[in-house]
Amino acid sequence: MHETYDVIVVGAGHAGCEAAHAAATMGSKVLLITMNMQTIAQMSCNPAMGGVAKGQIVREVDALGGMSGIISDKSMIQFRMLNRSKGPAMWSPRCQSDRNMFANEWRLALEHNANVDFWQDTVSQLLVKHNRVHGVRTDMGLEFKAKAVVLTNGTFLNGRIFIGEKIFGGGRTAERATTGLTEQLVEIGFEAGRMKTGTPPRIDGRSLDYSRMEEQPGDENPGKFSYSTTKPLSTQRSCWITYTNSDVHETLKEGFEKSPMFTGRIKGLGPRYCPSIEDKINRFADKDRHQIFVEPEGWETVEVYVNGFSTSLPEDVQLRALRKIQGFEQAKMFRPGYAVEYDFFPPTQLKHTLETHLVENLFFAGQINGTTGYEEAACQGLIAGINAHQNAHEKDSFTISRSEGYIGVLIDDLITKGTEEPYRMFTSRAEYRTLLRQDNADLRLTERGHTIGLASDSRLQDVQKKKQTIADLMDNIRVTKVKPEEINSWLGDLNSAQLREKSSLYGLIKRPEIGLTEVDYLLQFLPEYEPEVNTETIEQAVIEIKYEDYLNRERTNAEKISKWENLEITADFDYDRLKALSFEGRDKLKKQRPATIGQASRISGVSPSDISILLVYLGR
Amino acid sequence: MHETYDVIVVGAGHAGCEAAHAAATMGSKVLLITMNMQTIAQMSCNPAMGGVAKGQIVREVDALGGMSGIISDKSMIQFRMLNRSKGPAMWSPRCQSDRNMFANEWRLALEHNANVDFWQDTVSQLLVKHNRVHGVRTDMGLEFKAKAVVLTNGTFLNGRIFIGEKIFGGGRTAERATTGLTEQLVEIGFEAGRMKTGTPPRIDGRSLDYSRMEEQPGDENPGKFSYSTTKPLSTQRSCWITYTNSDVHETLKEGFEKSPMFTGRIKGLGPRYCPSIEDKINRFADKDRHQIFVEPEGWETVEVYVNGFSTSLPEDVQLRALRKIQGFEQAKMFRPGYAVEYDFFPPTQLKHTLETHLVENLFFAGQINGTTGYEEAACQGLIAGINAHQNAHEKDSFTISRSEGYIGVLIDDLITKGTEEPYRMFTSRAEYRTLLRQDNADLRLTERGHTIGLASDSRLQDVQKKKQTIADLMDNIRVTKVKPEEINSWLGDLNSAQLREKSSLYGLIKRPEIGLTEVDYLLQFLPEYEPEVNTETIEQAVIEIKYEDYLNRERTNAEKISKWENLEITADFDYDRLKALSFEGRDKLKKQRPATIGQASRISGVSPSDISILLVYLGR
Ligand SMILES: Cc1cc2nc3c(=O)[nH]c(=O)nc-3n(C[C@H](O)[C@H](O)[C@H](O)COP(=O)(O)OP(=O)(O)OC[C@H]3O[C@@H](n4cnc5c(N)ncnc54)[C@H](O)[C@@H]3O)c2cc1C
Ligand SMILES: Cc1cc2nc3c(=O)[nH]c(=O)nc-3n(C[C@H](O)[C@H](O)[C@H](O)COP(=O)(O)OP(=O)(O)OC[C@H]3O[C@@H](n4cnc5c(N)ncnc54)[C@H](O)[C@@H]3O)c2cc1C
Repeated sequence: MHETYDVIVVGAGHAGCEAAHAAATMGSKVLLITMNMQTIAQMSCNPAMGGVAKGQIVREVDALGGMSGIISDKSMIQFRMLNRSKGPAMWSPRCQSDRNMFANEWRLALEHNANVDFWQDTVSQLLVKHNRVHGVRTDMGLEFKAKAVVLTNGTFLNGRIFIGEKIFGGGRTAERATTGLTEQLVEIGFEAGRMKTGTPPRIDGRSLDYSRMEEQPGDENPGKFSYSTTKPLSTQRSCWITYTNSDVHETLKEGFEKSPMFTGRIKGLGPRYCPSIEDKINRFADKDRHQIFVEPEGWETVEVYVNGFSTSLPEDVQLRALRKIQGFEQAKMFRPGYAVEYDFFPPTQLKHTLETHLVENLFFAGQINGTTGYEEAACQGLIAGINAHQNAHEKDSFTISRSEGYIGVLIDDLITKGTEEPYRMFTSRAEYRTLLRQDNADLRLTERGHTIGLASDSRLQDVQKKKQTIADLMDNIRVTKVKPEEINSWLGDLNSAQLREKSSLYGLIKRPEIGLTEVDYLLQFLPEYEPEVNTETIEQAVIEIKYEDYLNRERTNAEKISKWENLEITADFDYDRLKALSFEGRDKLKKQRPATIGQASRISGVSPSDISILLVYLGR
Repeated sequence: MHETYDVIVVGAGHAGCEAAHAAATMGSKVLLITMNMQTIAQMSCNPAMGGVAKGQIVREVDALGGMSGIISDKSMIQFRMLNRSKGPAMWSPRCQSDRNMFANEWRLALEHNANVDFWQDTVSQLLVKHNRVHGVRTDMGLEFKAKAVVLTNGTFLNGRIFIGEKIFGGGRTAERATTGLTEQLVEIGFEAGRMKTGTPPRIDGRSLDYSRMEEQPGDENPGKFSYSTTKPLSTQRSCWITYTNSDVHETLKEGFEKSPMFTGRIKGLGPRYCPSIEDKINRFADKDRHQIFVEPEGWETVEVYVNGFSTSLPEDVQLRALRKIQGFEQAKMFRPGYAVEYDFFPPTQLKHTLETHLVENLFFAGQINGTTGYEEAACQGLIAGINAHQNAHEKDSFTISRSEGYIGVLIDDLITKGTEEPYRMFTSRAEYRTLLRQDNADLRLTERGHTIGLASDSRLQDVQKKKQTIADLMDNIRVTKVKPEEINSWLGDLNSAQLREKSSLYGLIKRPEIGLTEVDYLLQFLPEYEPEVNTETIEQAVIEIKYEDYLNRERTNAEKISKWENLEITADFDYDRLKALSFEGRDKLKKQRPATIGQASRISGVSPSDISILLVYLGR
């Protein structure tokens, strides 16, 4: 028990679980200390994983050898690929989860990892000597030693819960807050701030009238998150859609004078893109309705999550307003929505490995870094866990660049720019989002995860085989030709130009009129085509062909920028001299005066071609 | 939501769940308020239901229409009928439970009851006017109104947790205590006291060497608790047995000076019959080993419960001592054992319905009444829930007498004698334990449960059919005769006297040499014998025949005493005049001077024949 560990992980939320699993799988002896073993991997808010940009993160975590994808696959009750009508870079997997199964599967996964020990307790202090962490001390007065420590305290540090005018200490409803850690870290020299987040009321599904809502079933052929052998769902549960209306809004406004946010009792900033319902009707006063997703909490429970109705207004106001929503006329609550305010540490105090600058071998991951969202927390936990292991074994650090994955974007954003409000991922945050697709996370990252001993050999083999098959298929597509008489009538139906002579499938696939669904028809002309084995491979090959030029340009850009990332730009650089710069680009560059090409490339409004012009001027 | 309820139940432990389910099933609109909806029906201590006397209670709860038996059946991982080598009155069903499944099944059962609403919150105050309860107020500042309120706060009222010299506020590990309620009740005029209980450390099963322990598998043909259609297990998990030794004891003693019990920091009395390991080695200094049952916490988890090692010594002492137990040499803990001290209300303040004398329509059930154990809590919850419903609908109160069930014994003991230490059930507490068997709880109680609308019609029909079948079978046994030549060689093998002439099966079954297992052979002589349909029926008929005289005597006694329960005995009654009294009986009666025949009958050492003598003298 009181042996020295390689890595101690504090907190078993999404960040802590990934951190513990990663370090342990790589060979570290890990101690996972968490306040309550019954709440391991508890979803604090909505029972769902993935979504726009977040789904991509889950796939990246999976590709590297993390667990969030596998756990999601095992506990999902519905799967949807969002944005399928848009380009592949926007496709985003999302699932509804069975809240209890999700937590249970995570716990079992960790239990089955022989290198993970558990201790139920609250960490109240870090053991730090000569700017290096050596372990932790707990509320029970125990000391545990380790070479590296990962803090993933989530919303628990000096957490305070707000409902209308009432304030309770707590990290989550019915759970204690934790004190002492922030104070110690501030004493050491860390900067700390306050943030807030909120959650909707939980509803008794038996009290809702679903016939007055719109059904939202899962995908007909549901996908999944993990590239491993997990199974897709064979049955699914539906969600439901309804809307607020001006009556609802008027009722909510009656509570504004008691709102902890509007009256200034909550000081911390909340997530702008996950606003509370009172925020929404305040900020978008012209909108007379907002969408509400009614999401089941599991396979069997009647509890329902009211996505879109996060609120910390007084509970009687919550209930009265809810009951004015169509289908909610008889709604009963299990508990009201609430807001929670907590300490975070501005993430500019971290390295790309998520190690702190101030204290060696101390890592921060998850909500404690000012982010919001399970996926954002999970991927940070993964990177922190990996690097805690690497540090403990005096191995090289492991980071993901912005062109390799959303994980790289997230961490780079955090540590270079910091964040004023809870940070969540969007596709727009990634410069290379066309490269960072959900469909190719394995191709991008599994080899990297394997090099450090996290992704398994069989995962690596799968990816290598997949790469080869894609290359073969693309070659095949390049050399296979069709005759005009074989295809012209089909092309005609699609309003696509007729062929005059034998042409390659390759050229046809590139045509804009031929979408991903039409390609199937073309592939039957391949000499050895086995549709059932290759759906993912085909998708990959077709995307590569259709978007070839674009993807290649992106790759060149990415390479160029990553090569010249640290190339300096003098503070007095005269942007007016470069006539070729875009108007907006020049303007932004003059205002923000980036110190390096890397920084310049991340200013929104500065285009890749602006960067190319800069590079040419700087002699590269 | 804020409608007026018939019944509010405070707390969703074993008592609260049964109370809510019973009242709701009988037709009350019920609100179940509990601190955390994730901990509904949490097993605070060992993951097991039943056991000696407790298994009988679960069967009684089931027979009346309660849920504990059904939930246990659905979540058990092992079943054993204890004491099978003793007489049928001692047979006691016991199961190991999957801790999470147990909680989950209870929650789903309640969710599926349309009359149960839920509210997650902490009740901090009762609304009492003119000595009558009208509802509750919560920490969130809300008021909920109801005609009757059932308090089932368990170990949470001003709960304090002790580990060695450390003290934390809390009702259970990692859960908050609750304050304010005791104070209000004391103000109203209630008497309150302190009790304590304890729990062992939780162990990482992966760190144990089971090859050094003794396996304890489940029964070969596992039974179950419920008389309904639940299924018995087809696979089971084993438990394991090991022992402490003098090394363990010496190590534990090193912690005695820091023990919260021995140093007097814990004031409340603990359960004498569930002692901590430090208690055991202190009180039974001559015993050089104590048995330890190593019990899995569920189907899949590696967590293990160390039954017999409850302790509140410092955690380092706990660990060092544990590791000296055979098979525990490498043991790792998930968390240490601890003791919890909490408020209870001496149950003499209650009626047989569990309504308080002081406040109308206010009921107390469970640990709050000074009991210990899930089963004891569950059956009180059931009775309180039933009577809360009856009160709310101005119907007759419902009680179980001592001769009808252990439930009657428990409640009668509590309200007439009170309890100084946590009360648990034993078979020895029941005067009529030969009548109150686990095999006949349905015959005793289902009709009663049906009369009040709790046990379903189909349950009643099953019982009525069963009664008829038993009667038919007994008639059949009485009239069926066997010839000497058909049976004498078999009797010879059993060393039982030879038959001279045709004799009834009836007489043979009564022979002591013929046990329950041998009876099967005899029954083949019945003209219409279908062994597969009737195992329970046969068991019943055979027990009735074998123990006929004894059971009849008991029934007569029970009737006599229940008839003359309140017959007064004068304070100066001269017991010496009654020469026929037993020596011990006279002695006890002279010392305790019972006021009624009922009280006299419950003094241990006073036999049923003593009571008969007394009754004759008193002219009955
Ligand atoms: C009320 C609420 C609403 C939210 N709403 C949204 C939303 O709308 N959208 C969104 O994307 N995200 C939302 N979130 C955020 C999301 O839940 C978090 O981003 C995510 O759970 C963070 O994961 P984490 O691992 O960093 O921390 P958490 O999931 O909070 O886990 C922290 C863990 O650390 C443990 N712990 C804390 N302190 C200690 C200590 N001192 N010692 C030992 N253990 C400790 C806790 O017990 C817990 O297990 C919300 C969170 C809350 C609480
Ligand atoms: C540490 C420990 C060790 C134990 N050891 C043993 C043992 O060895 N053997 C044995 O037989 N029994 C043991 N027990 C006892 C057994 O757990 C209890 O007897 C049984 O759980 C009591 O059931 P209950 O329903 O009365 O209360 P509990 O199971 O304690 O449930 C109480 C419920 O009420 C809720 N609650 C409390 N206050 C409020 C409030 N103000 N507002 C809303 N909700 C509230 C709680 O959240 C909880 O859900 C132990 C208990 C503990 C805590």
